Amino acid sequence: MTDDLIFRHQLPVQIRFSDVDQYGHMNNSSYFSLYDLAKTAYMHDVFGNENWNKLGIVVANINADFLAPVFFSDKLMIETAVIHLGHKSFTLLQRAVNQTSGVLKCQCRTVMVGYDVATKEPVEIPLDYKQAICQYEGKTLEELSESVIL
Amino acid sequence: MTDDLIFRHQLPVQIRFSDVDQYGHMNNSSYFSLYDLAKTAYMHDVFGNENWNKLGIVVANINADFLAPVFFSDKLMIETAVIHLGHKSFTLLQRAVNQTSGVLKCQCRTVMVGYDVATKEPVEIPLDYKQAICQYEGKTLEELSESVIL
Amino acid sequence: MTDDLIFRHQLPVQIRFSDVDQYGHMNNSSYFSLYDLAKTAYMHDVFGNENWNKLGIVVANINADFLAPVFFSDKLMIETAVIHLGHKSFTLLQRAVNQTSGVLKCQCRTVMVGYDVATKEPVEIPLDYKQAICQYEGKTLEELSESVIL
Amino acid sequence: MTDDLIFRHQLPVQIRFSDVDQYGHMNNSSYFSLYDLAKTAYMHDVFGNENWNKLGIVVANINADFLAPVFFSDKLMIETAVIHLGHKSFTLLQRAVNQTSGVLKCQCRTVMVGYDVATKEPVEIPLDYKQAICQYEGKTLEELSESVIL
Repeated sequence: MTDDLIFRHQLPVQIRFSDVDQYGHMNNSSYFSLYDLAKTAYMHDVFGNENWNKLGIVVANINADFLAPVFFSDKLMIETAVIHLGHKSFTLLQRAVNQTSGVLKCQCRTVMVGYDVATKEPVEIPLDYKQAICQYEGKTLEELSESVIL
Repeated sequence: MTDDLIFRHQLPVQIRFSDVDQYGHMNNSSYFSLYDLAKTAYMHDVFGNENWNKLGIVVANINADFLAPVFFSDKLMIETAVIHLGHKSFTLLQRAVNQTSGVLKCQCRTVMVGYDVATKEPVEIPLDYKQAICQYEGKTLEELSESVIL
Repeated sequence: MTDDLIFRHQLPVQIRFSDVDQYGHMNNSSYFSLYDLAKTAYMHDVFGNENWNKLGIVVANINADFLAPVFFSDKLMIETAVIHLGHKSFTLLQRAVNQTSGVLKCQCRTVMVGYDVATKEPVEIPLDYKQAICQYEGKTLEELSESVIL
Repeated sequence: MTDDLIFRHQLPVQIRFSDVDQYGHMNNSSYFSLYDLAKTAYMHDVFGNENWNKLGIVVANINADFLAPVFFSDKLMIETAVIHLGHKSFTLLQRAVNQTSGVLKCQCRTVMVGYDVATKEPVEIPLDYKQAICQYEGKTLEELSESVIL
């Protein structure tokens, strides 16, 4: 299903010296710092300056395939898209790609769940947030709701 | 299949102030630093002081369920077990547990692949490493090879 | 003045795989994560479970000498002492020491300033906090106030 | 002496979600990751693609003044200059500045020492590296050698 997937959100990211381990490879944990960086940028872009951090959301699952090592010298870009919109959750697909070579280094699927900060219970994603995602991704709510998750 | 799973490797871990985010929760990326810490301790314990870092292994996949937030004040323990042994790969199951309350905070499955440092190709996990894992886990190679992955 | 300095607070710390860089040395930034870890443990021990995080304090200056590299295999201990108590500030001396060999790897002086969370202005360190530090360090307020800072 | 200091090297940096602590402030340790990032970019720019990592250098001292907290929303820039060139060492001055407001958040002086990877002994900084620094900074070797360190 990802063959025709278009990532509208692309963020070049800075690799820090401390991200690289003894083998000259970027640490596993640093990938998730960079996915987080791109995720907050995505939400800022989609939901706007005022609203992006009002939505109570937590990460429920992370599933990442490490396909090739990232080196300190890599020009790395994180691509982000919402690939599924449910009632109380949505799913991000993110890719770490070498900007120069186009080589796909890592792919990660993250399930985010809406929650109420007061009750700590899962809640429906507000409709305006869903609409903002649909508009950004250029898809209807039906398309994103029915999409098969990888 | 995890109902009767026994984690023979348990490591209390130190949470650093920098692991905790604006919401008072441990960062997603910090979980993976702690899983790495427990993974290297596991391999040290199973393979011995001399041998643990001779095996060329890379992480192929990480799949983590975040069940409850970790706080700075939590006494956290990482439990680690090998739950599957294949020809060129093995699978770790790791859990982040509050030592005091016993609450399961996060569960993570990591697929590790043997590789040849020179050719960069996947290679068979050496038999003595497999045997060391079986001995540590108290299971036969058949049991670990046939285990259904979560 | 540090010749006769006794560090009453000693904390063995865990080095994570992600703390170590391409040269096999612990990153500069990781030292400060570990000093922070020891600093919060110190304050917890000195001020008690309830009070340690009520004091509004910020770091004003960090001055660290890197004397020898730290390796992943090092059994590392952080030693912490308050070496100066002023009106609105106090100064910590911390050392990173190999527990096995006793080799001093790094020494760091940190100036902490009391501040009022509401007004964001520097404020006097409360007397009971000063007394708790004096009691822990086994020194009088005069001794700690007059101490020459390194 | 810093009144007329011009920072020719300025690097906008990305703040990650994991850099920010419970109080909404960037962690102390993250400053040093960002200073490292700017330091490697500086050396890449001054010494060239091929040579920057051939020079064996280690950090001997870090001295940082924290003047104002950095927030996740800050557009942060790291300014870097060599302010002193000795025989076997040189000194960097780095500043973390809010790009929008111009507010100086943190200032850090780092002493770097040349060393021989084989003998692990301090060595003279090679003349061509010194000349590259002088050319970049627009100063003579005499000016940089005689400069008073802050």
